[in-house]
Amino acid sequence: MQRVERRVCFDGVQEVWEHESSALGCAVRFGIFLPPQVRAGRCPVVYWLSGLTCTEQNFVTKAGAQRYAAELGVIVVAPDTSPRGEHVADADRYDLGKGAGFYVNATQEPWAPHYRMDEYVVRELPALVEEHFPATDARSICGHSMGGHGALVLAMRNPGRYRSVSAFAPIVAPSDVQWGRDALGAYLGEDSAAWAAYDACALVRSGLSERLPLLIDQGDADDFLETQLRPELLERACAEAGHALTLRRQPGYDHSYYFIATFIGEHLAYHAEALTRA
Amino acid sequence: MQRVERRVCFDGVQEVWEHESSALGCAVRFGIFLPPQVRAGRCPVVYWLSGLTCTEQNFVTKAGAQRYAAELGVIVVAPDTSPRGEHVADADRYDLGKGAGFYVNATQEPWAPHYRMDEYVVRELPALVEEHFPATDARSICGHSMGGHGALVLAMRNPGRYRSVSAFAPIVAPSDVQWGRDALGAYLGEDSAAWAAYDACALVRSGLSERLPLLIDQGDADDFLETQLRPELLERACAEAGHALTLRRQPGYDHSYYFIATFIGEHLAYHAEALTRA
Repeated sequence: MQRVERRVCFDGVQEVWEHESSALGCAVRFGIFLPPQVRAGRCPVVYWLSGLTCTEQNFVTKAGAQRYAAELGVIVVAPDTSPRGEHVADADRYDLGKGAGFYVNATQEPWAPHYRMDEYVVRELPALVEEHFPATDARSICGHSMGGHGALVLAMRNPGRYRSVSAFAPIVAPSDVQWGRDALGAYLGEDSAAWAAYDACALVRSGLSERLPLLIDQGDADDFLETQLRPELLERACAEAGHALTLRRQPGYDHSYYFIATFIGEHLAYHAEALTRA
Repeated sequence: MQRVERRVCFDGVQEVWEHESSALGCAVRFGIFLPPQVRAGRCPVVYWLSGLTCTEQNFVTKAGAQRYAAELGVIVVAPDTSPRGEHVADADRYDLGKGAGFYVNATQEPWAPHYRMDEYVVRELPALVEEHFPATDARSICGHSMGGHGALVLAMRNPGRYRSVSAFAPIVAPSDVQWGRDALGAYLGEDSAAWAAYDACALVRSGLSERLPLLIDQGDADDFLETQLRPELLERACAEAGHALTLRRQPGYDHSYYFIATFIGEHLAYHAEALTRA
């Protein structure tokens, strides 16, 4: 594992590391912000999952999260959104292949050998972080758009693994929207029964999943609101299943990092509270 | 004048506008953040000048300034760093020509027709901002690296025009370092006597300039510290001339936007205090 960037920031350090991932079968990068509190002992970790087309850099450079993490004493880890490299399958579109891993373990060719972001995010990356950095095993998870989908489904699929979960403008019903249908169809196959395991609405309805309450912010001027995001579907599923959901529609906000920057402080405070609760 | 971007952000609005500049003889863009307080009346303005290679986007996307501006009730205006366009002279290097206007009014060919960032920043842009936006004529100025140089010299060359001035890792003695000598030589000619009008150290020594106190943050892990920035030269000039200077050496910080993001809140608070003083 090799450090490729180190920036002092808000009295902590923003780093980027590269390593050979066994889950992904390629070299990948992740960002990690270490708050000043790590000098006094291990800190809990918030995992951030980014959206379509992003690398680890987008969140690290644009969200302004370091200020809040430094105040709250949480580590923030931001992985890339897919496997990378010349030998990794790709598609000639922004919403499939590189930059668009959708946080699943692919079962279909040509994706299956490398597109295993579920395994990477849930297992390999935390093990690495907890071994090599001053991190506790208290974890929360949060993300944006495709990464909001990732945060919701990975938290619900893994009861007990995360203390809290939240999302910005998540894809909540991938089985019902074009982004999700195309990606899940490619990665998991055309039998949509397999998609339910990675569909937040289906997981809520299944009643078997993690019962963590869900915190979601959604801009009402988001260009993808009605076609790809459709938070009303999750609202209905949660109401029917009795699953706690706080869905905040934020007036005027769009799908960009300006939206994330505005509310990331509140999300990190929400996670910090859960992470430090006795 | 045409709006090319509009993002709701921290309950205010981050916009980017494009207009034909008479000072520059080309179309240029600037960013402007309007805090929520403009709904209740006009707000004062902080001008931000960016460094080499930047456009108006770097500060707007990476500094995290909007949060503080929204708390303090100040407008923040971030112009581009040079004229732009096919008909504008350029050089095949990052530190001269486009992206490297150095905030001077060029007198030499081929630069003289368009490279007039001094005129643009000090006169044309504030007139535009104060006419078309809910801005008062209370102005402060701040910048980074080449833009820190710009903030210092434009404030000192224009007594009474700015309420306060500050800089991050500024070029304080352009006549004495490679970045400055090459640029001032190209834009103003080889007679270095002409450079003094755009050299912060020379302006302080001249004793004729604006007597505003100077606030400067400088990272001590900045790769350009000893070759291009040399804050000790300004420290000496200020001590000799009795010019108030607060120079804070920040341990571990480099030349990047991570450094700016860490301290921009303190700079904006410093300017807001000066801008709202009776």
